[in-house]
Amino acid sequence: MAQLLPASCSLNISSSSKPYAMSLNRSSTVFRGSFRSGTSSFPLKKFVSGGKRSYRFGTIYATAVSMSQEAKSQPGSGPRKISSEASKAKRVMIIGGDGYCGWATALHLSNKNYEVAIVDSLVRRLFDHQLGLDSLTPISSIHNRIRCWKSITGKTLQLYIGDICDFEFLAETFKSFEPDAVVHFGEQRSAPYSMIDRSRAVFTQHNNVIGTLNVLFAIKEFRDECHLVKLGTMGEYGTPNIDIEEGYITITHNGRTDTLPYPKQASSFYHLSKVHDSNNIAFTCKAWGIRATDLNQGVVYGLRTDETAMHEELCNRFDYDGVFGTALNRFCVQASVGHPLTVYGKGGQTRGYLDIRDTVQCVELAIANPAQPGEFRVFNQFTEQFSVNELATLVTKASEKLGLEVKTISVPNPRVEAEEHYYNAKHTKLIELGLEPHLLSDSLLDSLLNFAIQFKDRVDTKQILPNVSWRKIGVKPKTVVA
Amino acid sequence: MAQLLPASCSLNISSSSKPYAMSLNRSSTVFRGSFRSGTSSFPLKKFVSGGKRSYRFGTIYATAVSMSQEAKSQPGSGPRKISSEASKAKRVMIIGGDGYCGWATALHLSNKNYEVAIVDSLVRRLFDHQLGLDSLTPISSIHNRIRCWKSITGKTLQLYIGDICDFEFLAETFKSFEPDAVVHFGEQRSAPYSMIDRSRAVFTQHNNVIGTLNVLFAIKEFRDECHLVKLGTMGEYGTPNIDIEEGYITITHNGRTDTLPYPKQASSFYHLSKVHDSNNIAFTCKAWGIRATDLNQGVVYGLRTDETAMHEELCNRFDYDGVFGTALNRFCVQASVGHPLTVYGKGGQTRGYLDIRDTVQCVELAIANPAQPGEFRVFNQFTEQFSVNELATLVTKASEKLGLEVKTISVPNPRVEAEEHYYNAKHTKLIELGLEPHLLSDSLLDSLLNFAIQFKDRVDTKQILPNVSWRKIGVKPKTVVA
Repeated sequence: MAQLLPASCSLNISSSSKPYAMSLNRSSTVFRGSFRSGTSSFPLKKFVSGGKRSYRFGTIYATAVSMSQEAKSQPGSGPRKISSEASKAKRVMIIGGDGYCGWATALHLSNKNYEVAIVDSLVRRLFDHQLGLDSLTPISSIHNRIRCWKSITGKTLQLYIGDICDFEFLAETFKSFEPDAVVHFGEQRSAPYSMIDRSRAVFTQHNNVIGTLNVLFAIKEFRDECHLVKLGTMGEYGTPNIDIEEGYITITHNGRTDTLPYPKQASSFYHLSKVHDSNNIAFTCKAWGIRATDLNQGVVYGLRTDETAMHEELCNRFDYDGVFGTALNRFCVQASVGHPLTVYGKGGQTRGYLDIRDTVQCVELAIANPAQPGEFRVFNQFTEQFSVNELATLVTKASEKLGLEVKTISVPNPRVEAEEHYYNAKHTKLIELGLEPHLLSDSLLDSLLNFAIQFKDRVDTKQILPNVSWRKIGVKPKTVVA
Repeated sequence: MAQLLPASCSLNISSSSKPYAMSLNRSSTVFRGSFRSGTSSFPLKKFVSGGKRSYRFGTIYATAVSMSQEAKSQPGSGPRKISSEASKAKRVMIIGGDGYCGWATALHLSNKNYEVAIVDSLVRRLFDHQLGLDSLTPISSIHNRIRCWKSITGKTLQLYIGDICDFEFLAETFKSFEPDAVVHFGEQRSAPYSMIDRSRAVFTQHNNVIGTLNVLFAIKEFRDECHLVKLGTMGEYGTPNIDIEEGYITITHNGRTDTLPYPKQASSFYHLSKVHDSNNIAFTCKAWGIRATDLNQGVVYGLRTDETAMHEELCNRFDYDGVFGTALNRFCVQASVGHPLTVYGKGGQTRGYLDIRDTVQCVELAIANPAQPGEFRVFNQFTEQFSVNELATLVTKASEKLGLEVKTISVPNPRVEAEEHYYNAKHTKLIELGLEPHLLSDSLLDSLLNFAIQFKDRVDTKQILPNVSWRKIGVKPKTVVA
């Protein structure tokens, strides 16, 4: 799903140097000036003659244009000047850079003097519209976010709006930006979303698997030395009754020994899509010499990073709803509005967790220490394990200190998962690279709760309870009543 | 990709009882009589009013119509009469029933008095057209095949032509046929095909993964007791340095023990698609109680089964080309035309093999002994292991007996795979169910070679050598020169 801009749209963001002007001229039958890429995936009749494309009059859609690319071709702007320092900076493409983890990571890397481009279809914002959801925190448009970042730091984030499942678009971003590393957050990332109905299940697997395949082909074709940093999930492993290793396990069986991919037991169509990705990436590392790091991330909590805290227009999204909200964030919002903490089932479900400040740190560490050509490296990216009941207890105690009375209730588990199980997952590789964890502390919980209280008028309590059932998913498209 | 029938097409196959008549009336704006299903996935403007669909004048496409369903609603045919014996017969839907394994299986089960429906988009035939390939043996159209089967045995094979990635079509087939078991061969099944170019890689994964997801949803929604018999591949396991078990392995690690899915190391986008399927199916067994058997099949060889041998119109396809041909079949064709046997690389690649007569037997055993609700059962479906060099030696010896002079050459391996490796895969579960293997014998090789000699004038030697490289696959669409 690419963002569609009508041909008449002229998007001018005020700036003295006009670095972000993007305009499309409808009256012309040929793309002029700086519009460098089109796509054939839309119903646009196209004729090729003499190597030059002309287009029939009609609605014209833009899917791939870098706002800074536009600037480069403004009359008088001349060729891009690259300082000797900038030329050393790694060029990092962040797919899904408008999302929760992606936005925080884009700013963090830009702040660390990486040259950053965001690639995003903005479909995550569409999901909110379609499901009647909203971030607890008000978030600015991607265009305003980028303008604000530029005005505060002087740093440019390049922007490519489009869908990586559209290979023509993705190829343009690679040829234009020439990344040294690609951080791939650009997937449908909610397990409940993937379990709403058949069409969302299919969308999730198609979008995630084909998008990642396209990224792999783009790296092979255009930037074969580029390091892929792919966001996986700890959920790929499920809850085996043995220790979880980082990606691989050495097995001795009938007197022989081999080190093999750790067995996966994913438990939603979303989690399965990540397993499919991991398998596809591993193959391309072996067959094509791709260098890749799979970050099997735990559940992320927290709102602020150093960079998103710089200005309210840089504020990150914060999901608390039953579809996109993660456990700890949701509990804090529930506590702030006097809603009981909703533990699914017995609450013994144990997972790895990490602060979003560690997400951005981990990605930076992976980029700074790239995998070798042909290496498929797997890091388990979390810092602490908690059961849902333990989280509820922590939030209850922190809430009491703030004078909030908090109850915990068990609601029927909408998922199919073990509610009491062994769980011991290794997570040493990122520590060895230098990760300094922000462990879950009283002060962080205070801060999270205070955020929730600050924005509690924005809470829609109807969205808190789970309304997606793993068992009841059907083939009829589900929609949301007003 | 569904088969498109123009509205004016009237397909009348002569038969005294006219059981196969399928006609669409273009002049009418409403589908009449027996046309029970349409699809919204084609550019057909459709209006729904009062629950009754009418269609604008224009080309009308049929994607889901059972030929025998048509017959049922012929004036005077009355309601279907089901004898007490027929009512006991299991109803088996064979997706991909026009293909190499699917066709042999459809006839075998029909002969064993199962009530059989073939669901197929016929896209396999399109691949041949597009790539300039052809079966060694001449094969009849699916319509003529079915007519011939009826005329010889009196048994009806129902036929639904359409694409299972189109859920509306698939849902119609389930509601109409009401299967007790679904045998799912309906996937793009060639590793080289999946490695031709980016678009074929994406097609393969999309087609196979989404098709199987749709089958799982159809079972859940319409036939939750239906047993899914899914064709997987031994290639899912790769070539680990330990024994290969049947689907699961018990691992003791750091003092704890669990039985987990056997680690997979697939080595083409095709093989990976089968791994993705296995993971998706396993999840739905757990979450929804689906009953499924994953048949991890080895390389199939052979042409004749008892049923396909009954009449030349029932003859199965036999692929020898570099894209769809499998090793042993290809070697026999090479020997018959004096082409050297082409061993890829060192030839130590060892795999499981089976006779197509055992394929049909295995599927029958799986259906007759279904998995339990919620059970995800994995059988390794092969009877013997051979290295490529061993096969070449066997074919050489058998050819000499027939007076053929055969050479073997090593060609650069187009694949990325170990050419010398440990390989020991278990395959006892189907034997325990009663499989009586047809092992590769001199007489079978004689027979295969004689077939190849019989049809050697049809051999296109340009198609024999591998022309798809695992390493050189690119993003530009590949086409075949005339």
